[in-house]
Amino acid sequence: MILRDPVHGLISFEGPAESIISRLLDTRELQRLRRVRCLGPASLAFPGAEHTRFAHAVGSAHVMKRYLDRVYALSDDLPAADQVDHDTAQVALAAALLHDLGHGPYSHAFEAVLPHPFKHEDWTSRLILDPDSEVHAVLRQIDSEAPGRVERLVHGEGDIPHLARAVSGTFDVDRCDYLLRDSHMTGVRYGVLDLDWLLQSMRLMVAPGEQRARMAVDGEKGLTAVEGFFLGRLYMYRQVYLHKAVRAAESVMRALFRRLDELGPQPGTPAGMAKLLVGQEPTMGEFLDLDDHAFEQALKAYCTSTDPILAELAGRMRYRRLFKTLRLRHDVPVARAMARLREVLDTHHDGPDYLAAVDRVEVAAYYEDSRMMAYTGGRLQRLLDVSPVLHGLSNETFVHYRLIFPPELRAVIKEAFVDLR
Amino acid sequence: MILRDPVHGLISFEGPAESIISRLLDTRELQRLRRVRCLGPASLAFPGAEHTRFAHAVGSAHVMKRYLDRVYALSDDLPAADQVDHDTAQVALAAALLHDLGHGPYSHAFEAVLPHPFKHEDWTSRLILDPDSEVHAVLRQIDSEAPGRVERLVHGEGDIPHLARAVSGTFDVDRCDYLLRDSHMTGVRYGVLDLDWLLQSMRLMVAPGEQRARMAVDGEKGLTAVEGFFLGRLYMYRQVYLHKAVRAAESVMRALFRRLDELGPQPGTPAGMAKLLVGQEPTMGEFLDLDDHAFEQALKAYCTSTDPILAELAGRMRYRRLFKTLRLRHDVPVARAMARLREVLDTHHDGPDYLAAVDRVEVAAYYEDSRMMAYTGGRLQRLLDVSPVLHGLSNETFVHYRLIFPPELRAVIKEAFVDLR
Amino acid sequence: MILRDPVHGLISFEGPAESIISRLLDTRELQRLRRVRCLGPASLAFPGAEHTRFAHAVGSAHVMKRYLDRVYALSDDLPAADQVDHDTAQVALAAALLHDLGHGPYSHAFEAVLPHPFKHEDWTSRLILDPDSEVHAVLRQIDSEAPGRVERLVHGEGDIPHLARAVSGTFDVDRCDYLLRDSHMTGVRYGVLDLDWLLQSMRLMVAPGEQRARMAVDGEKGLTAVEGFFLGRLYMYRQVYLHKAVRAAESVMRALFRRLDELGPQPGTPAGMAKLLVGQEPTMGEFLDLDDHAFEQALKAYCTSTDPILAELAGRMRYRRLFKTLRLRHDVPVARAMARLREVLDTHHDGPDYLAAVDRVEVAAYYEDSRMMAYTGGRLQRLLDVSPVLHGLSNETFVHYRLIFPPELRAVIKEAFVDLR
Amino acid sequence: MILRDPVHGLISFEGPAESIISRLLDTRELQRLRRVRCLGPASLAFPGAEHTRFAHAVGSAHVMKRYLDRVYALSDDLPAADQVDHDTAQVALAAALLHDLGHGPYSHAFEAVLPHPFKHEDWTSRLILDPDSEVHAVLRQIDSEAPGRVERLVHGEGDIPHLARAVSGTFDVDRCDYLLRDSHMTGVRYGVLDLDWLLQSMRLMVAPGEQRARMAVDGEKGLTAVEGFFLGRLYMYRQVYLHKAVRAAESVMRALFRRLDELGPQPGTPAGMAKLLVGQEPTMGEFLDLDDHAFEQALKAYCTSTDPILAELAGRMRYRRLFKTLRLRHDVPVARAMARLREVLDTHHDGPDYLAAVDRVEVAAYYEDSRMMAYTGGRLQRLLDVSPVLHGLSNETFVHYRLIFPPELRAVIKEAFVDLR
Repeated sequence: MILRDPVHGLISFEGPAESIISRLLDTRELQRLRRVRCLGPASLAFPGAEHTRFAHAVGSAHVMKRYLDRVYALSDDLPAADQVDHDTAQVALAAALLHDLGHGPYSHAFEAVLPHPFKHEDWTSRLILDPDSEVHAVLRQIDSEAPGRVERLVHGEGDIPHLARAVSGTFDVDRCDYLLRDSHMTGVRYGVLDLDWLLQSMRLMVAPGEQRARMAVDGEKGLTAVEGFFLGRLYMYRQVYLHKAVRAAESVMRALFRRLDELGPQPGTPAGMAKLLVGQEPTMGEFLDLDDHAFEQALKAYCTSTDPILAELAGRMRYRRLFKTLRLRHDVPVARAMARLREVLDTHHDGPDYLAAVDRVEVAAYYEDSRMMAYTGGRLQRLLDVSPVLHGLSNETFVHYRLIFPPELRAVIKEAFVDLR
Repeated sequence: MILRDPVHGLISFEGPAESIISRLLDTRELQRLRRVRCLGPASLAFPGAEHTRFAHAVGSAHVMKRYLDRVYALSDDLPAADQVDHDTAQVALAAALLHDLGHGPYSHAFEAVLPHPFKHEDWTSRLILDPDSEVHAVLRQIDSEAPGRVERLVHGEGDIPHLARAVSGTFDVDRCDYLLRDSHMTGVRYGVLDLDWLLQSMRLMVAPGEQRARMAVDGEKGLTAVEGFFLGRLYMYRQVYLHKAVRAAESVMRALFRRLDELGPQPGTPAGMAKLLVGQEPTMGEFLDLDDHAFEQALKAYCTSTDPILAELAGRMRYRRLFKTLRLRHDVPVARAMARLREVLDTHHDGPDYLAAVDRVEVAAYYEDSRMMAYTGGRLQRLLDVSPVLHGLSNETFVHYRLIFPPELRAVIKEAFVDLR
Repeated sequence: MILRDPVHGLISFEGPAESIISRLLDTRELQRLRRVRCLGPASLAFPGAEHTRFAHAVGSAHVMKRYLDRVYALSDDLPAADQVDHDTAQVALAAALLHDLGHGPYSHAFEAVLPHPFKHEDWTSRLILDPDSEVHAVLRQIDSEAPGRVERLVHGEGDIPHLARAVSGTFDVDRCDYLLRDSHMTGVRYGVLDLDWLLQSMRLMVAPGEQRARMAVDGEKGLTAVEGFFLGRLYMYRQVYLHKAVRAAESVMRALFRRLDELGPQPGTPAGMAKLLVGQEPTMGEFLDLDDHAFEQALKAYCTSTDPILAELAGRMRYRRLFKTLRLRHDVPVARAMARLREVLDTHHDGPDYLAAVDRVEVAAYYEDSRMMAYTGGRLQRLLDVSPVLHGLSNETFVHYRLIFPPELRAVIKEAFVDLR
Repeated sequence: MILRDPVHGLISFEGPAESIISRLLDTRELQRLRRVRCLGPASLAFPGAEHTRFAHAVGSAHVMKRYLDRVYALSDDLPAADQVDHDTAQVALAAALLHDLGHGPYSHAFEAVLPHPFKHEDWTSRLILDPDSEVHAVLRQIDSEAPGRVERLVHGEGDIPHLARAVSGTFDVDRCDYLLRDSHMTGVRYGVLDLDWLLQSMRLMVAPGEQRARMAVDGEKGLTAVEGFFLGRLYMYRQVYLHKAVRAAESVMRALFRRLDELGPQPGTPAGMAKLLVGQEPTMGEFLDLDDHAFEQALKAYCTSTDPILAELAGRMRYRRLFKTLRLRHDVPVARAMARLREVLDTHHDGPDYLAAVDRVEVAAYYEDSRMMAYTGGRLQRLLDVSPVLHGLSNETFVHYRLIFPPELRAVIKEAFVDLR
């Protein structure tokens, strides 16, 4: 199995352990990911960002294959318990491929705006463990334990710590692929990381007094690549994930779901979404029917709703009539901004107050993760202690702080907030 | 208006004529193109190929902007009638942006498989000319003639020949963008053309005895770029547009539409598609509702049809269970291949005979277009006469000749055609 | 004048002010830069790093051309005194092209190792101002003031502050080109900056109470690009400019020049270098003869010197038998490291003590430059105050701290410094 | 051993057979290649084209390593005699690294202009086989046969046909590297080939009735990559190798060597070059001293020669005062062009007649090589028969036909040849 990928170039799964990939790709659970875009509403701001969870799943499995190649190259110095055998390789490749199986329409945006809790990780587990799913059936062909092993690995758990971290950790195959893919597809090149060099400078080292290997980076050769990896994440947050148009679109989505919650059942709502809106659990079939297309067809139906607010919000999504934003000074208390906003809305707006919002997000510039070390000067050290860049970042926070509001309020908002921006 | 594009990098529309772009982008007709993928079923073979007609429209307008910049740089030597003024620049940018407005779901694949004729060009015209469309209203802001001028330009007609060719000709902004975009998104890099050099070496020359300028390429500087352009087109046909999995998917689509035609009205069919299936004209609203999402929701509905053939074909599309292919020798007459195929189907298959097909496509490697010349040795010459590569290609034909059939027939087909492949 | 450049792609100098470029390129002073490599001994570690000051000069002029295009686009809001007219554009292009004219063989490495002070900036001035130089003659064709204006601009001085900074400042055309070029040629991609976006988000703003415009970056759109620019500089220091093999080579060069200084005149020494070695000023002709080739031919001659130390050092350069390095802990006082090194040399080595060295370099991760601001929230602010990344970096220092020594001492050095590394 | 390469990215030679590489890199014969540029005078037209035979040698060894990886992947189906064992791998890597050892200054240009025959291949053989060379000593560490095996392999001979072809054939590691490298460094991207795909689609197949494997390309997957490879070669000829400024520079070089031949011994001539000029064989030491730097230092000396013609020609090279060119119609007989040129020179020029030249080069667009086949439809076929592009090219010839002359003759030449161009 060989395919072309815009991010990784030539991808081939031809080794014996890799045959699991093509069997999993043919399942309906994975085929559903063709209809779930990675970045949800971001394509409203970045016309190229139409890439799907399916392509990301394939890319993640490819990075896992390369990770395993590196593990084999390092295996001479690896404790027996940390070695990867044939079955474990299959499990690891499957976990990389399936790690996002449970995403709803528009990926992260969906769970961010649903009025009731929804965690895509739970649905990933359910789809892997449910004996009626097609992926479960394929995984059982490895052995009866395989579905459980894959499910645990997806959540960063398993017998081999370094492998669990490679599936879900600070430096994992998921992030390696999504930073590259989101960069390539949005045209924001800041997330491009140096995968070749990251893998080449990766070590698996047993710290003194320990039995099991940790991931480490060669502090002489790989530090810049690792810093680039963390900076890439940061930049993609700033440039893409928290882009003002993306946040504005999520704000419209949130208002729409809140309106649906207020109104009760509405025509055109897919069955699975109807259940999620009232905090019930969809059936697996209902969940599998829930994808970007189902959601957008619902939006189309809402455009002709008898409720003018629902119709307006749906039209904003469908025809990209997004809310506007205004940046606020970082030192303005959120409560004060909200009070001010409420005054404006009370005076100038006759719609529900949730049509405008105060949006404040803080992203820590760098978190140290003790399971990702630097190997330098003959010993394992904290990344913080060997990298001035990460040390500098570790005290910094990125603040995105904005008002989000309908365009017709622009003038009054600008005037009302003149001292807070 | 500045945006990031994966193909062109930074795109800005900030000049006075370019304000037309953002006004057109906000129309529902253009927003619809967000839900129409450029390559239709190709994403089944190339997971990255999810890019939309919307992104392509923006990219085409960007190339037009660069074309106009080049025309301004050449304007000293240009006849007055071939100069581009402010209004004409707006019309040209609009035509580049709107040229694909009338595409149905899955773009070209849709019109290829509909049992009744459907031409996206006609719908583009209709949407531009219809006084009720939002793009029409925006274009009328230029002046009352503008919608008509844009519509003619989209079809390669207009007062300025070189501009008409730049919108729709051998070397036009459409192709410049789609070759680059399809390459970037599929990961098949063979369509990457050298846009900088093509524009830099482009001339506008008046041939002896003529009044108006033709496009020409500097035969010393630009020949390789022009050859690369034509080869890029050829390679994208071979590698992508006629890829066996893409043709197999179109074959399944064709069978599905034929079945729909036989069965008559089916639940889940969008209103616009229902009319097209019986050769009627949808209303504009029905047409605008017809996009990839609407089509794929229909496929989902067909998966549970009471007609087992329809259900099976829809499931093949939805879950990517494509037909297989077998290459045939180029010298085998199509009639002979079809007769042989019929025998196999009669013996081994109990479904309708259109579940298998003989698929033969011929692509001329190069067509000379007299409106695209080389300027070399102080005179306009045919590209054929100055380029050994194009001369060599002009006699060649690419033949794609395959059987397409359900996987369960693979063994019998291979045996039955052993002397024809 | 159109040419291909590996870094910038197509470079064209076709505008009226740009004709100065091709006339300057034909001078013998600029042609000499074909024989001066940008990174001196770095090609010993990076086989691709053979690029010359000539290519860098052309690239810098190209970036200046793009800078001027941006200035013209911003000129509506620019004070009259900050506008760039035709003659000033010629002067600016010339300054960008000529800014490195005075580099000696191996560029920076040469002045770092000469026993007597040598500043390439002084030689640049001399070559521009000397009425006998060919560049001077070309510049005088603009007007009699032009050579002086160009010379001042090269040093960051001139009537238009923003332009002076663009030639020599924190964010200048020199650095834009060399980070890109050094990245491209070494294969260390970390210096790749986003030139399109940097220019597009650049503003020229007059601060309250001031008359003249300063460079600023749009804090909403351009911050990431600016951070990338500063990080790129940092990374190129770490990965290339201070690479251990590069420092080791410079250490060998330094020892060689010290030996030449001890020995007095040696056969094979070019006349210009002989004068520089004794602190005398070469003639312009002697200086122009001094290039990488002349220096390497001298090295060849020294390989057969009767002085065994000179011969050995020259052979190390010529046949790439570099010294080894050992990293030291950052908290080890340099005096202590030197004392320890002396002990080792006294015991184990019979050559001159300068054959080994303690090499400590500190690079501030970020310096704030008040002439490069952020424009955000409607006002000019310090980059430090709007960028958490630069804020974090501003307190950090990169320390490169190593012993450099001949390979035969490796074992004893490692043992002697076991507690200091 | 890991290094950064601008073309291939990360290059590592860490496997057991690959240790031969670093030992060979340290020899003075290979270190000499740091001072021999791949494209000789092309840097006069392409400022980036300063890359050396040393970097190309490393790149070729890297491609050989990848070739061997592909051979191992295919080894299950390979006759025992075509398998590659440890020693053969060392020999193959060494041959790839050393294949250009014997190049003179400016590479191909040098042998093209010497009045007496000089073949770099002969010098490569001599340096490998001479017991006094350092590379010979390293190769003998493998075993006493190794130098001979390497030398034969460099010339495309050896026990394993496919390996011999990979070192020196139509599709060999040399060309794979130089097309990529020359493209990257000139900025002429047309030589960029798809190495990943070429290797992935490469097969080693035994034809019916034969015992040994031939190289073949999978006709379904790899045809476009192979065509791209041949087109890349063609384009690099047209755009770079036969660029008018490159040919003009070679013409000046040729005139200079002819003048040297006429004048007899001249001061400043390196000993090895002096012998070659009179058809004698230099010693190995003299040859190793002959590199770009030695040649350019000789040019510098000639600039002050008492012979005005020699001084002028040397100055043209040193200060890039190249001859001009004029394209001629392809159907003009060379004899006629020469006669016409002589008339012009007789009338208008008082220098030697070889200061102008008729330059006609024909490059066959494609040669079929029976040792490089396509594997398609279950059998080996000629590339010509399966590729319309190569079929079309096989009948075509690229003709570069120009006059080359000093700039002062431009006007009279243009007039005299008005009917021939």
